[in-house]
Amino acid sequence: MIRRLCIVGTGLIGGSLARDLRRLGKVAEVVGSSRHAANLERAVELGVIDRFDVDVARAVAGADMVVVAVPLGAIPGVFERIRDAVDDDAIITDVGSVKGSVVAAACSVLGPRLPRFVPAHPIAGTEHFGVDASIERLFERRRVILTPTTETGADALERVSRMWETVGAEVVEMDVTRHDEILAATSHLPHMLAYTLVDVLGGMKERAEIFRFSAGGLRDFTRIASSDPRMWRDICLANRDAVAEAIERFGSELDRLAGAIRRGDGEFVHRAFTRAKSVRDEYS
Amino acid sequence: MIRRLCIVGTGLIGGSLARDLRRLGKVAEVVGSSRHAANLERAVELGVIDRFDVDVARAVAGADMVVVAVPLGAIPGVFERIRDAVDDDAIITDVGSVKGSVVAAACSVLGPRLPRFVPAHPIAGTEHFGVDASIERLFERRRVILTPTTETGADALERVSRMWETVGAEVVEMDVTRHDEILAATSHLPHMLAYTLVDVLGGMKERAEIFRFSAGGLRDFTRIASSDPRMWRDICLANRDAVAEAIERFGSELDRLAGAIRRGDGEFVHRAFTRAKSVRDEYS
Repeated sequence: MIRRLCIVGTGLIGGSLARDLRRLGKVAEVVGSSRHAANLERAVELGVIDRFDVDVARAVAGADMVVVAVPLGAIPGVFERIRDAVDDDAIITDVGSVKGSVVAAACSVLGPRLPRFVPAHPIAGTEHFGVDASIERLFERRRVILTPTTETGADALERVSRMWETVGAEVVEMDVTRHDEILAATSHLPHMLAYTLVDVLGGMKERAEIFRFSAGGLRDFTRIASSDPRMWRDICLANRDAVAEAIERFGSELDRLAGAIRRGDGEFVHRAFTRAKSVRDEYS
Repeated sequence: MIRRLCIVGTGLIGGSLARDLRRLGKVAEVVGSSRHAANLERAVELGVIDRFDVDVARAVAGADMVVVAVPLGAIPGVFERIRDAVDDDAIITDVGSVKGSVVAAACSVLGPRLPRFVPAHPIAGTEHFGVDASIERLFERRRVILTPTTETGADALERVSRMWETVGAEVVEMDVTRHDEILAATSHLPHMLAYTLVDVLGGMKERAEIFRFSAGGLRDFTRIASSDPRMWRDICLANRDAVAEAIERFGSELDRLAGAIRRGDGEFVHRAFTRAKSVRDEYS
């Protein structure tokens, strides 16, 4: 049971978590904070939070669980503003999609609070964002990856795990570098490809016809290009080495495929597609 | 009304077309042909065709409408085998995803039959294939592009248009080269990206974890990598210049993005993502 939950950044993830914990009766009070009062008023209206404070230091006071759910680039600033304002027994956790940069910020900013900080990444979301996009049961049967530091206390880890399990997620622990490499491949790279494809198509002179003569394949393929540009800019920059490396690895495979197509090497092309299809069919 | 429809290649597209024409009472008899008797027996069982003949020359005899729905690479061979077997008044059309290569094959093979040949491309399909994947209403509100040659007769064009409109499609005409360029961008390129991404991920040592920790975004993004490898090999090779050029255009944009990420150029990245999001939101 959480006595007072403070959600810093009351958007899709923070809002959906608050909705579920309230629905399940696992939290007594939810306080929201964000730089945008309008968003917070909307969150109260939607019944996602009980009250709010745009001053994050005041918002976290008295909370026993603080969930930092702002875009990655804003996390270090939030850590600085809450460090001296949180209760001594408060647990701090985040939901950032990149963990190396968050852990680095926590280590350099949180100081004595570090044992009660738990880096976390719920692998859930949609291409929509903001508190209006928050929904119930977003985390059911989804995975939440925790990347504890050597400083992270067992009790804090346990409480954050339990919070996510309460809303239906499967919690796993992972090394922080491994997390960032895997997510670069499985999530960040596909987003870069979708954004780049839509940007290329949008820049072509046949633009109107291109979209007119597209089918469901393109629509599904580019759905993630509707995601929040700021959030994804932050992810790219926070995980820049792993993302750039994943892009380059992909780029050289794509070059090899283009070469095979140019020289009419049907064998190469057929082998590559068959390999991919069998992987896709196995994991879907 | 079609008296006898011959579907050469009774798979997803040919089978779905036959299903709708029968359902709507717009065809008296449907004859199937394919190299695989088992597939044809299944098509009879499913009620997609009335009867079949694995010998395509015998199958087309007496038909007033012949729809060639085999993979692109097999189309020239089918044209050769049916040229002297079809009735003089029979209309021949195809459903190939690339039109330049089909038109070239028709011009060099069909000879005096050319005025009754209509190159067509229904922009519809799923990642599934074979007659078991054929469904009713696949073409409703979808577009069918016709790329007539200077030889194509007005009556043949009209009858093929009407056939597709009957099953709910919107028919448009387009220049053959333009068709192949637009489809390279909007359909062939995304398939190359999806196949390449899954192939890259499948080749990584963290393969099992990569798919375990992926979310809906990756699943949607890679759905098209389950498509028929042979069909897509044929499409790449038939449209090789336009496909290779689309890949290269994409590759250089992706390189620019990787460069911006490496140097931490958040402005560049944010602008690119914002541009893409606005295009995607406009057309979805």
